[in-house]
Amino acid sequence: MSSLRAHVYRIPADGPDDVAGVEALFAGGLAVKNVVAVLGKTEGNGCVNDFSRGYATRSFEDLFHRHGVDGVSTVMSGGTEGALSPHWTIFTRETVEAPGERALAIGASRTPVLPTHHLGRRQQVLLVADGVRMAMRDAGIDDPADVHFVQIKCPLLTSRRISEAEAAGATVATRDTLKSMGLSRGASALGVAVALGEVDEAEIADADIGIRFDLFSNCASTSAGVELIDHEIIVLGMSSQWSGPFAIDHAVMENAIDAHSVRRARERLPENSRLAAVLAKAEPDPSGKIGGKRHTMLDDSDISGTRHARAFVGGVLAGVFGITDLYVSGGAEHQGPPGGGPVAIIVEKET
Amino acid sequence: MSSLRAHVYRIPADGPDDVAGVEALFAGGLAVKNVVAVLGKTEGNGCVNDFSRGYATRSFEDLFHRHGVDGVSTVMSGGTEGALSPHWTIFTRETVEAPGERALAIGASRTPVLPTHHLGRRQQVLLVADGVRMAMRDAGIDDPADVHFVQIKCPLLTSRRISEAEAAGATVATRDTLKSMGLSRGASALGVAVALGEVDEAEIADADIGIRFDLFSNCASTSAGVELIDHEIIVLGMSSQWSGPFAIDHAVMENAIDAHSVRRARERLPENSRLAAVLAKAEPDPSGKIGGKRHTMLDDSDISGTRHARAFVGGVLAGVFGITDLYVSGGAEHQGPPGGGPVAIIVEKET
Amino acid sequence: MSSLRAHVYRIPADGPDDVAGVEALFAGGLAVKNVVAVLGKTEGNGCVNDFSRGYATRSFEDLFHRHGVDGVSTVMSGGTEGALSPHWTIFTRETVEAPGERALAIGASRTPVLPTHHLGRRQQVLLVADGVRMAMRDAGIDDPADVHFVQIKCPLLTSRRISEAEAAGATVATRDTLKSMGLSRGASALGVAVALGEVDEAEIADADIGIRFDLFSNCASTSAGVELIDHEIIVLGMSSQWSGPFAIDHAVMENAIDAHSVRRARERLPENSRLAAVLAKAEPDPSGKIGGKRHTMLDDSDISGTRHARAFVGGVLAGVFGITDLYVSGGAEHQGPPGGGPVAIIVEKET
Amino acid sequence: MSSLRAHVYRIPADGPDDVAGVEALFAGGLAVKNVVAVLGKTEGNGCVNDFSRGYATRSFEDLFHRHGVDGVSTVMSGGTEGALSPHWTIFTRETVEAPGERALAIGASRTPVLPTHHLGRRQQVLLVADGVRMAMRDAGIDDPADVHFVQIKCPLLTSRRISEAEAAGATVATRDTLKSMGLSRGASALGVAVALGEVDEAEIADADIGIRFDLFSNCASTSAGVELIDHEIIVLGMSSQWSGPFAIDHAVMENAIDAHSVRRARERLPENSRLAAVLAKAEPDPSGKIGGKRHTMLDDSDISGTRHARAFVGGVLAGVFGITDLYVSGGAEHQGPPGGGPVAIIVEKET
Repeated sequence: MSSLRAHVYRIPADGPDDVAGVEALFAGGLAVKNVVAVLGKTEGNGCVNDFSRGYATRSFEDLFHRHGVDGVSTVMSGGTEGALSPHWTIFTRETVEAPGERALAIGASRTPVLPTHHLGRRQQVLLVADGVRMAMRDAGIDDPADVHFVQIKCPLLTSRRISEAEAAGATVATRDTLKSMGLSRGASALGVAVALGEVDEAEIADADIGIRFDLFSNCASTSAGVELIDHEIIVLGMSSQWSGPFAIDHAVMENAIDAHSVRRARERLPENSRLAAVLAKAEPDPSGKIGGKRHTMLDDSDISGTRHARAFVGGVLAGVFGITDLYVSGGAEHQGPPGGGPVAIIVEKET
Repeated sequence: MSSLRAHVYRIPADGPDDVAGVEALFAGGLAVKNVVAVLGKTEGNGCVNDFSRGYATRSFEDLFHRHGVDGVSTVMSGGTEGALSPHWTIFTRETVEAPGERALAIGASRTPVLPTHHLGRRQQVLLVADGVRMAMRDAGIDDPADVHFVQIKCPLLTSRRISEAEAAGATVATRDTLKSMGLSRGASALGVAVALGEVDEAEIADADIGIRFDLFSNCASTSAGVELIDHEIIVLGMSSQWSGPFAIDHAVMENAIDAHSVRRARERLPENSRLAAVLAKAEPDPSGKIGGKRHTMLDDSDISGTRHARAFVGGVLAGVFGITDLYVSGGAEHQGPPGGGPVAIIVEKET
Repeated sequence: MSSLRAHVYRIPADGPDDVAGVEALFAGGLAVKNVVAVLGKTEGNGCVNDFSRGYATRSFEDLFHRHGVDGVSTVMSGGTEGALSPHWTIFTRETVEAPGERALAIGASRTPVLPTHHLGRRQQVLLVADGVRMAMRDAGIDDPADVHFVQIKCPLLTSRRISEAEAAGATVATRDTLKSMGLSRGASALGVAVALGEVDEAEIADADIGIRFDLFSNCASTSAGVELIDHEIIVLGMSSQWSGPFAIDHAVMENAIDAHSVRRARERLPENSRLAAVLAKAEPDPSGKIGGKRHTMLDDSDISGTRHARAFVGGVLAGVFGITDLYVSGGAEHQGPPGGGPVAIIVEKET
Repeated sequence: MSSLRAHVYRIPADGPDDVAGVEALFAGGLAVKNVVAVLGKTEGNGCVNDFSRGYATRSFEDLFHRHGVDGVSTVMSGGTEGALSPHWTIFTRETVEAPGERALAIGASRTPVLPTHHLGRRQQVLLVADGVRMAMRDAGIDDPADVHFVQIKCPLLTSRRISEAEAAGATVATRDTLKSMGLSRGASALGVAVALGEVDEAEIADADIGIRFDLFSNCASTSAGVELIDHEIIVLGMSSQWSGPFAIDHAVMENAIDAHSVRRARERLPENSRLAAVLAKAEPDPSGKIGGKRHTMLDDSDISGTRHARAFVGGVLAGVFGITDLYVSGGAEHQGPPGGGPVAIIVEKET
């Protein structure tokens, strides 16, 4: 009787081009073709002119190319503010001869190409919702309640794409390319919410995207990249078609200091288990306050608010988990409640 | 039978010049003359060109001047990175008709003027040690173990002071004015260590200051300011000559993610008590690693390492205490172990 | 026969609170009551959280208050990037017994209070246009061609003002307080353009403000401040009702590297004259290019584009004039052509 | 009769990985093997954590590798502050059948490996001086007065190199890796000065390097890179063994606003010529003043002084030359007078 089995590796990185630790895994016997996804924290500013992401992506493309493998989903999140540590998280899956037993499940999918004028609109939400459902099927997860984290890489608008769309008579959601990143992240997150039944698709209009932050998913983590025009979707959850020592759960931080919810989620996971990975989203509270007290993240013209938020929430989570190689990503539109965000926790049971 | 009684107020600030909350305290009956010290977190960069500190200091000077009071010790620490919230902590003391009963004690002192060529040297250490002993006596604390936090404002070198010293034939510890701030903070912290018996004064040579970080105080918090040429010292501890509901204890974070030590210190304080203030020091781990994992604070040429450290340790502490108006200050030479730092916790018992 | 006479002083500042140089002028005989305006360059970031401006303003308020004078227009522009030097420019006027002879003229005015819902709209344009005409009359300038620089301090929206306006049933131009600064600057600049006949008022609709940057004034320099709800207007130009050695002209930089236009304007002024002050606006070219070559100012998430622009245009102007205490201010909506800006040059003829 | 012929191409870059413009040159017939050197301006911060340099270097290595060429000297200078434009300058040389006629000459050399403990010391100066003489011979330049620019890529200390040197019983010049960059740049610049007879080698002691800035070269431009342990040297000058339309001269800016010297150098070059490239060094004036007026570059804890200097001097030079794709590099120890720096100008005569 066979089942699927996931493995999660957390590898330190000495720089955006340091893939030596991953190469060592391959040299040690890890089958390169089993790699489903790489989530990286790189040490750039995590904003527009962050070249550490592209540099890291290129380093991994070269690595996989050298091993004759392509199509691995590579998501680079810039910004290791505070004491966050640059690292790669490697997700693998393989078929093993063992009975299924409810374990960490990983599914992946890609959507069809997103028409440029659908970006940031209801159509993107629906396209992503379909993609999430497909990735759930790939992961062998039926019940949305078994999904704990959905990582999506989504497209953005460029001047050229806008021009082409307009030349074809279409109207885009925004002509501001930076703003298009937030819209795409937001629409993708709402796509997760729809697929998981967190938000009724009938409730979402074009005008809500990037505006009505009371609509959100508790499991979505989305980032926009210039290198694709469809969506790469990775679903992490629990499934009885899988086996092995890994398990996942998630918390929803209500605000940036909500360590309590995180600790409770950790306690729901098996006690005799080793922490394998923490994946979280962070953002400056849009209200300008946390617990009634003013923060200054949104008024700081020297340091972007996303950088403040990663540093601070990184500290909150490091205080809970005792490690610094945490995947804390910024830009959390419709991903968790405003000022809060989802936190996925993956553990490996001791055997 | 009379005793001394301390009170601690934590007041939000809407900006460096917003003293309205403190004025409201005065209007509500707080006697201005009872104010011993103001510790402020202001929202500048906390580095060289942080004008929020001077602006806040001026605002308080004007405030106290309007009330006919002067000589209040005012320590402004710049930098509310992450979700840290700008605020003032007001310390008062008064004599009350009530028996002493072991409570929060506050003492203050000023040292004689520090000769310019003593700054950053053993002589400064000894001068500060004497000042700390004097402040302990003022606080009615005999046992160094009852001291939990010593806040010191110390001088720095300016081009003019250096020139005058050299014209008089003296040699200064450094001609780099920025570096003089670290040396002065470090020597002052070692002065605390000597006064509290944490380090034997015979062990400290000029060359150790700013170098041998294995020598440190677990209770020192020092900051350099251009506006004084002596030292302002505030000692916080427990004394049986005092009364009232306030109590203090402290933790020593071994590194930036050591939430455990902080939680334990909180647990040593009365359970049925309200958090009144948290005072902490933070710094980037000079080893470049925390728990064996690389951090990037010291290699970031866009954001000063002290800013990263405050944001991150602010997050760790906010996760523990559930508030963001924490006094987290950077520049922790000889203040706690390298990469760690002291954390004082003040509570008010419910009555 | 009497005339008016202007004087312009350029005074170095050692910090936002250093008014010693101005006090020395007063001590040396300058009548404090003759001071019409202070334009300062302070060393903050020139963006939202720049406390150097407020600190400097307070220092000057205190200074004038000590001398029993109030109502002096004080405009603080933050940001001395590159080698720009913090300094104050002091403008004075007095009546002298001498015939008029075409010289630098200074006029000032304040508009009525701007209703909150007029900000960033056509009504603000018209209100400012009236104010500029009034300041021209005050300066004794009839011909708009004799106006060379109009400095305006205009209001912005705050959360409170927006709430009050909305409570009264009004709709504001934007609920984004930062964006309101740009709208107010832009509408004020268009007000100058209308008053000087550069743009026909019939051509300006609400929707053009902050959008149609082909509409602009070649003489406007506007900045928004939280401390006022009307407009402070200073007009600088030439008038035959004035006398004395000072003269003014202005250039319009077509883009950030247009040193040629600046040199030509300097050459139009008397040769045997000493440079008294240079007042300029700078902004990142919104096209993303200068002379067909890409710049990176608008994509830099570490340094605000306004800071880049001041540093660079500061360099261009310093290369032309050979001094670094230049008033180069950012945020140039409708002030000169997109990516370019007005440059006023004031000289003092040798006598 | 044959001679050597240089060509200089200035190619815009859309990002650190955009080598499309250079590929187009190759596709258009430029022989890849003729390329001697690539000097790039990339859009990172130009400081420690600037990944745009490594990313660009990798992109060029891949490009040359695809064309079967290696050993091309690639110098990436980070930082396009202000309106500086990211670009590549490509230097080629080939033998042509034409008589020599005094034209731009390019020579290259590599020194032997620098022993770790020689870095930042007199031995490095002498090693580089030999290398410069070798590159001059390669360029066919006999007279040091014909040398106008010497670009050097020099090594730096890493923790590992320091450990190995110390294990072998050697003492390094500094254990601070960042500081080693400045020392290596400075010693390399002094090596140029010795080779060109600007400074007598007998005058240079270990202790002068990084200290006695009155010793400097007017033609040196050096940058430290982690990827080499020897020196890559490129000499640009005039030689009668070369032919073709390119010519070079250089100015020495006495300080950051010295546009006059630059204009004079331009005037020494043929009038009917097109600007091909400008190569300059810039640094914050270590005196803290320019022309007696304070600058704030060295006190700014938000923006590195090197970034301010590039932005500002970029503006000065753009005002003179009317272009923004200028090679302005920071870190100018012993490269030109303190606060000033060398500026090489290459033109192509119209034919």
